Amino acid sequence: MTAATTPVSITASDAPDQPRRTPALESLYRSFEAELLVPLWTEIGDLMPAQPHSRALPHLWRWANLLPMAEQAGELVPVGRGGERRAIALANPGLDGRPFATPTLWAAIQYLNPGEDAPVHRHTQHAFRFVVEGEGVWTVVNGDPVAMRRGDFLPQAGWNWHGHHNASTSAMAWIDGLDIPFQYYTDSTFFEFGPEEVDSREAPERSRSERLWAHPGLSPLTHLGPSPTTPLLAYRWEYTDHALVEQLALEREGYAATVESGHAAIRYINPVTGGDVMPTLRAEFHRLAAGCSTAPRREVGSSVYQVFDGTGLVRVGRETWTVEHGDMFVVPSWQEVSAETESGLDLFCFSDTPIFEKLDHYRAQPAEKCP
Amino acid sequence: MTAATTPVSITASDAPDQPRRTPALESLYRSFEAELLVPLWTEIGDLMPAQPHSRALPHLWRWANLLPMAEQAGELVPVGRGGERRAIALANPGLDGRPFATPTLWAAIQYLNPGEDAPVHRHTQHAFRFVVEGEGVWTVVNGDPVAMRRGDFLPQAGWNWHGHHNASTSAMAWIDGLDIPFQYYTDSTFFEFGPEEVDSREAPERSRSERLWAHPGLSPLTHLGPSPTTPLLAYRWEYTDHALVEQLALEREGYAATVESGHAAIRYINPVTGGDVMPTLRAEFHRLAAGCSTAPRREVGSSVYQVFDGTGLVRVGRETWTVEHGDMFVVPSWQEVSAETESGLDLFCFSDTPIFEKLDHYRAQPAEKCP
Amino acid sequence: MTAATTPVSITASDAPDQPRRTPALESLYRSFEAELLVPLWTEIGDLMPAQPHSRALPHLWRWANLLPMAEQAGELVPVGRGGERRAIALANPGLDGRPFATPTLWAAIQYLNPGEDAPVHRHTQHAFRFVVEGEGVWTVVNGDPVAMRRGDFLPQAGWNWHGHHNASTSAMAWIDGLDIPFQYYTDSTFFEFGPEEVDSREAPERSRSERLWAHPGLSPLTHLGPSPTTPLLAYRWEYTDHALVEQLALEREGYAATVESGHAAIRYINPVTGGDVMPTLRAEFHRLAAGCSTAPRREVGSSVYQVFDGTGLVRVGRETWTVEHGDMFVVPSWQEVSAETESGLDLFCFSDTPIFEKLDHYRAQPAEKCP
Amino acid sequence: MTAATTPVSITASDAPDQPRRTPALESLYRSFEAELLVPLWTEIGDLMPAQPHSRALPHLWRWANLLPMAEQAGELVPVGRGGERRAIALANPGLDGRPFATPTLWAAIQYLNPGEDAPVHRHTQHAFRFVVEGEGVWTVVNGDPVAMRRGDFLPQAGWNWHGHHNASTSAMAWIDGLDIPFQYYTDSTFFEFGPEEVDSREAPERSRSERLWAHPGLSPLTHLGPSPTTPLLAYRWEYTDHALVEQLALEREGYAATVESGHAAIRYINPVTGGDVMPTLRAEFHRLAAGCSTAPRREVGSSVYQVFDGTGLVRVGRETWTVEHGDMFVVPSWQEVSAETESGLDLFCFSDTPIFEKLDHYRAQPAEKCP
Repeated sequence: MTAATTPVSITASDAPDQPRRTPALESLYRSFEAELLVPLWTEIGDLMPAQPHSRALPHLWRWANLLPMAEQAGELVPVGRGGERRAIALANPGLDGRPFATPTLWAAIQYLNPGEDAPVHRHTQHAFRFVVEGEGVWTVVNGDPVAMRRGDFLPQAGWNWHGHHNASTSAMAWIDGLDIPFQYYTDSTFFEFGPEEVDSREAPERSRSERLWAHPGLSPLTHLGPSPTTPLLAYRWEYTDHALVEQLALEREGYAATVESGHAAIRYINPVTGGDVMPTLRAEFHRLAAGCSTAPRREVGSSVYQVFDGTGLVRVGRETWTVEHGDMFVVPSWQEVSAETESGLDLFCFSDTPIFEKLDHYRAQPAEKCP
Repeated sequence: MTAATTPVSITASDAPDQPRRTPALESLYRSFEAELLVPLWTEIGDLMPAQPHSRALPHLWRWANLLPMAEQAGELVPVGRGGERRAIALANPGLDGRPFATPTLWAAIQYLNPGEDAPVHRHTQHAFRFVVEGEGVWTVVNGDPVAMRRGDFLPQAGWNWHGHHNASTSAMAWIDGLDIPFQYYTDSTFFEFGPEEVDSREAPERSRSERLWAHPGLSPLTHLGPSPTTPLLAYRWEYTDHALVEQLALEREGYAATVESGHAAIRYINPVTGGDVMPTLRAEFHRLAAGCSTAPRREVGSSVYQVFDGTGLVRVGRETWTVEHGDMFVVPSWQEVSAETESGLDLFCFSDTPIFEKLDHYRAQPAEKCP
Repeated sequence: MTAATTPVSITASDAPDQPRRTPALESLYRSFEAELLVPLWTEIGDLMPAQPHSRALPHLWRWANLLPMAEQAGELVPVGRGGERRAIALANPGLDGRPFATPTLWAAIQYLNPGEDAPVHRHTQHAFRFVVEGEGVWTVVNGDPVAMRRGDFLPQAGWNWHGHHNASTSAMAWIDGLDIPFQYYTDSTFFEFGPEEVDSREAPERSRSERLWAHPGLSPLTHLGPSPTTPLLAYRWEYTDHALVEQLALEREGYAATVESGHAAIRYINPVTGGDVMPTLRAEFHRLAAGCSTAPRREVGSSVYQVFDGTGLVRVGRETWTVEHGDMFVVPSWQEVSAETESGLDLFCFSDTPIFEKLDHYRAQPAEKCP
Repeated sequence: MTAATTPVSITASDAPDQPRRTPALESLYRSFEAELLVPLWTEIGDLMPAQPHSRALPHLWRWANLLPMAEQAGELVPVGRGGERRAIALANPGLDGRPFATPTLWAAIQYLNPGEDAPVHRHTQHAFRFVVEGEGVWTVVNGDPVAMRRGDFLPQAGWNWHGHHNASTSAMAWIDGLDIPFQYYTDSTFFEFGPEEVDSREAPERSRSERLWAHPGLSPLTHLGPSPTTPLLAYRWEYTDHALVEQLALEREGYAATVESGHAAIRYINPVTGGDVMPTLRAEFHRLAAGCSTAPRREVGSSVYQVFDGTGLVRVGRETWTVEHGDMFVVPSWQEVSAETESGLDLFCFSDTPIFEKLDHYRAQPAEKCP
């Protein structure tokens, strides 16, 4: 390549650990550029830091800002084939304006007007919905209509056909989490269009997947094959809430049940494996009782949180925010996070941790996870 | 060894595949006996049959006989240290009068009078209780009292401290299943005594283990480590029944949910792994709707069934029985089993299948399991 | 059943932990017998001991006795269809004269005259050959002829067609190890006859399996699928010897390489998984340098050893033997074993340990294995 | 954020699947920018293509150009603390001039003058060396000196201390492969400095790791614990070559041994698991016999190849190159690759496939791998 066309640009520096700037060195660097080569010695500080140094920044998005914009989009932006979803993604300020909450995670608010359909498609990206408020939409997964209601976690594993239908008379907003940035970066994404309308306009209370799978400790004998993704399409709020209530009650009775004092937490799991719901995504719900303060913690990999209920103070790296219902924030890799609350705080969160655990790259300080 | 003391005895035969009976051969056989040696060629037919040919026989025990004997034992036999449990085991007629339902499985009726304690101990044998009728006993596992009620499945994995306490004013009977014969045969059993009385006389509706674990698709964040045995100590009848009701309803609505027409079934699973509740024991519950008739099936490994409800006709190998509430029967390895019912039949069953699956020795005809 | 036909027999005793002997109790026991029932309280001491208490006994078989008897069998017993193999099995003195070295393991000396074929068959039992001396036989596995030579370990996983052919002018003896007792007891055995003569009379130096697989750290790209049993059909003595020589040399140079001072050891592994060669059988080779004395050790599960070379003193439980070339001995479950040697001792051994590891039942004192 | 500072920039378009450009829409887009939000409907085409559409491009680097530049760097650039390595990386023309061969893989030529040390450090990035020519350098891993010679593959799993030492009188060049881009992108990298000189200047023929581990099918009993990375530090050329020679010979004899006609291939594996040498990196060696032509193939994930010997024609996507000794080329995700040769072609390659296999994202057309 010529100097004009090569994307490589190498700058000789006078730093003590760099080779002496001589015409010969400059000439060599120009040859590198022409041949599409880059020396390690000019890049190592950026590429191989002593510990993860994410370009992503801690950031908070206020629900009070997100929801009105989604409502405006509801008026101005139709939902249909091509655009596919009326979804508005968080763009981390450190990631060049791309719609990436973190280097691996996508987080967006999605909005559907009464009677609207989000068209059917499927993709290898793993996804979920979490409903911070409202109801009335059914997400139809391989023909199985799944009600979406406040507090529900609705996983949508890769390569399943799905569309959404608002069967109610009110608009509804919720958040989507996906591994879009990870699959985009690693070039592993496939996508197919399905029908423009959902397969079924039935609006049952319980999906067929729940009727088969939402029984604690029981598996249907017909569906025992290995499955890297969860067959359960809805994790209902009443179960999550009940599990957290019980953990805090057990703690009060003197038994080990909480992550730390006043801090209850559950992980959503794939009942077929007992592991994470999807190969790249972990999802959890944390409840901090009134007066709880969590120990600071950091881990390899990034997370996105949404405040489900209550208020509190959250610290991520050098940032501190007072958070409330619907607010969303990101925790970049190896940035310390902690929270405290006077009156109680309910937090939903998801992360890319399964990637690192599967590749034996996971580290945390201290060892076990908390928000 | 001398001929008098050696346990080996070899008989020369005139069968066509046997060596010619000569004085030299007889002399060699006597040498074998003295040296504790046995030739393959006289034994291979028994040792290496074309397919499993269990010494265990199909057999049925009637609840109408079992329960009165347990009641009599309740009068005559105290429960305490040494005898440990008022348990009366099924002795398969093919297994030399040993208390083995099958070569690997123990099945017994256990009986506890009002106010009695079965003393605390622990052992490497994996165990469970299944309650075909009655209530009032709490099994206390590592200090956690677990109510036992009709239809409940209560796993008791190896090496956990446990005792039972009848907190009611009625006697109670239930069945125990264990892998005693398997661990006995393979010489892998350890046992320790605990206190003579249970740790706690509390009688809560729900055990702490259920409060932590009986939430569909949710795991407590504090208890995520690997566990080859289930941490959930009670699988309640209402969940089992509900799961079966839903499978049959889904079948009627036209969806794949049952093993075969009219035949619903669940497997009890370890929520930490999605696999069997214990390393050696599989437990399932099968419901045959009125008019259902199951396809004959055979598999490597043995099973024990108890009729929970209803009546029907059961065939095991060459045996046919009309069965009803509480009746227990065994299915030896590779014996065909099938069932039919006019009015409906509920069957609890357990087996040693995990052993064969883990050792890659499992086979079945046809492939998927049914009673 | 009537008293005459039932195999059950229950004896009331006056032991302090037994119910009072009364006519009513005797009558109940007779009812138990008739109904094929056995109480736990009369059996628990035998069935559930504090630690494994094997019926199998430590025992030594002398090669000086084994080989001549095999030679005699070579004269008197033809090899052919029906008897299948001229194999003479060790019968543990504690196991009722059955051809079981331990409750789970079969060990036999096999003998083949010049020009003889052992006919082709296959069975689910896992098997191997170990060659303590001699050569000249090819075992033909699925049509692949595998030379058998001194020091070689030749696994023969279940359900592969195999026959043996003596292509030399001398008779040859070797030992066979199998899991016959385990599969017999658990009723999981299948068997099929193949041709009466081996598929190939070629006698290559190296089998095709070795040419594909015997390259350290390299797998053929065509054969990467999961395989619970090893595809490598011969583990040659020169590799085993070399590995042991290197471990002892590394120890002398000051590096961690041996199990304990002067004690080198390798495990034969399945290159596809890095685990044991077969699901039920572990095989190892231990070398004790001159002057070595091993620490006593016991573990759940049983082992069979053969002295390959050298002499030494072996202790198993309460037995002590001076052992030499070809001698075989068994170590029952949880019996302590240790060895010492003045001039060096080479030991081949195999065990049922994978069964217990896979079922989470393994225990040892102290933790890591040695002879 | 203000318009001036936000990195987000959204352009309304007149495409038929986009919302109508109105002042209200433009105003909404400005609000999105200020709030760090990006709509899915403007980005979905890029983010979620029908199949992987890598920004990385197929590209070839000629050894004839690489080596002289490395030699020049040998004159101009000292090796030492800070720069750490005299390594010059391939910069894919599609990846903005970053030193990334593909989005996940680093590939570089490294060069060490006689007597030089590359200082000791460790990092979580997984690495390996492959030696296309030359010898004389020892890489010292945790104090174990490992000779580097022509044809050797030398894995260097993450977080092991390592430095290099040229013990000869000639300079030496080789290639390095790492997962630097993957760990950089996912923010999971840790790094520590060790001494500036290697721990040992010994130059043994065989490393201690080889003496413990390079025995086919044998594991040292002292080192049986689980290990996600290979303990074997050198995969010697003579073994690789021999395995390939045998595969082609077996093919000629009529047995299944090659990937396709004339195409032999091995994968380097971790003997502890039978799986890939490192959690993120797969390495293989392919030999195309004279006249061989491989079927086109594509797969999720990217690869880097180096021609070890011979010449041939390689096609990657729309590119076609005549390649020879030392040439390196990259295959982006889902780009078709094939090769043909008149006189024979030896190819070393590595890829990020384990990442996709572990995350259940792997796909290929057709199913099994070849170059």
